[in-house]
Amino acid sequence: MAERIWTAALVVIGDEILSGRTQDRNVAQIAVWLNAQGIRLAEVRVVADREEAIVEAVNALRARNDYLFTTGGIGPTHDDITVDAIAKALGVEVIVHPEARAVLEKHYATRGGLTEARLRMARVPEGAELIPNRMSGAPGIRHGSIFILAGVPHITAGMLDALTGTLEGGAPLVSRTIGCWVAESEVADLLRKAERDHPGVAIGSYPFFREGRVGANFVVRATETDAIDACVSSLVSALEGEGRTVVDGGI
Amino acid sequence: MAERIWTAALVVIGDEILSGRTQDRNVAQIAVWLNAQGIRLAEVRVVADREEAIVEAVNALRARNDYLFTTGGIGPTHDDITVDAIAKALGVEVIVHPEARAVLEKHYATRGGLTEARLRMARVPEGAELIPNRMSGAPGIRHGSIFILAGVPHITAGMLDALTGTLEGGAPLVSRTIGCWVAESEVADLLRKAERDHPGVAIGSYPFFREGRVGANFVVRATETDAIDACVSSLVSALEGEGRTVVDGGI
Repeated sequence: MAERIWTAALVVIGDEILSGRTQDRNVAQIAVWLNAQGIRLAEVRVVADREEAIVEAVNALRARNDYLFTTGGIGPTHDDITVDAIAKALGVEVIVHPEARAVLEKHYATRGGLTEARLRMARVPEGAELIPNRMSGAPGIRHGSIFILAGVPHITAGMLDALTGTLEGGAPLVSRTIGCWVAESEVADLLRKAERDHPGVAIGSYPFFREGRVGANFVVRATETDAIDACVSSLVSALEGEGRTVVDGGI
Repeated sequence: MAERIWTAALVVIGDEILSGRTQDRNVAQIAVWLNAQGIRLAEVRVVADREEAIVEAVNALRARNDYLFTTGGIGPTHDDITVDAIAKALGVEVIVHPEARAVLEKHYATRGGLTEARLRMARVPEGAELIPNRMSGAPGIRHGSIFILAGVPHITAGMLDALTGTLEGGAPLVSRTIGCWVAESEVADLLRKAERDHPGVAIGSYPFFREGRVGANFVVRATETDAIDACVSSLVSALEGEGRTVVDGGI
């Protein structure tokens, strides 16, 4: 019986990503972390700091994924509207979380005290619990299957650490990579055949141009190691049968 | 009268982005390029190499933006399904573009000839024209307001170069950045007030932790330089009025 596949979606919130000012790093970081939890990142949307845009994305994606993550927009300034938008999407009130307030009071005790702006970071959609943040004062927020994380990548990373092992998932997608100094167009048929011959296995082909030569890496993905090994074996045989040298692990 | 704002959306197509294997660079690259054309990147979706996912994203986003860009999935291998998916979204046939075929025939004349796999790269949704690609054989594709670009960032860049100045847009969004060694939570009210006092101007607040100290950059964005300058002036006065040192250009 095919194992259940768990999926997550990610909404990246921030004008700075859409303007090109900031290079997003959270898609890749969260993708890798999710996979280790046995959860597949199925889709991502990047939206502006606009309430309607966030509400639309959150509601569309949470309806069809097991988990929904957001990054960005949970700081103390006027452009941090994620909590309000998600509360609206869920149809719940925004409340000040007593534990978050206590955390912030402690954090800011020696830093000028808990101002009204800082207290904004204790606001959560009603019914939420906190995700610890060892890097800075403001915690992340969990509301059921929704995870509201910081946008600054190293703070996001700390929140993911705190969540590690707490989400139910399935078998992680595993992969093996082989590389070959070949134009992918010369081996397209061979790749297509290998994928067709091994159900449950997906082969990605990633060409590159390096040291004045073209080459490609082939990433073989599946949840079962046996299936990957079988597919890689037949790929290697087929490539070597054409007189090509295969580099295990990729080039 | 408010000037018309031109918007574009981007669909990033590729399992390699969603698995975390590849760090996307095209969102930032295309955002910056679009802004120089006077077009704002309004939203981005990252979708898997699955036809239904691509069709859904393309149809949702082209309906509400002036332009739609896609990156990825236009190579010669089995996982390159972008052209078929977009043809399906548009309800048109896939045809072999005679000019693309000629380009590829010439490119591969000294590289083993035009195989069936390579000919896949000449396939376009009916009615499309080509976008020159000086980096490799396969051209990009334009179909009305839809632009189908390569996924490999330097090839994408070449296609953007070829498109520079050919798309109608409005006034580019311009920005000025100032920086301050301050916790953004201490100046949240001041930022909110400055934004409220200057209609048409958006202020983004981007905190950082560097050299053992917290600071923040404030990015003031608008289409009118005068409006930006006025907003920056009042922000600087307000910050300096609190005895803070402002770094022009950001920290």
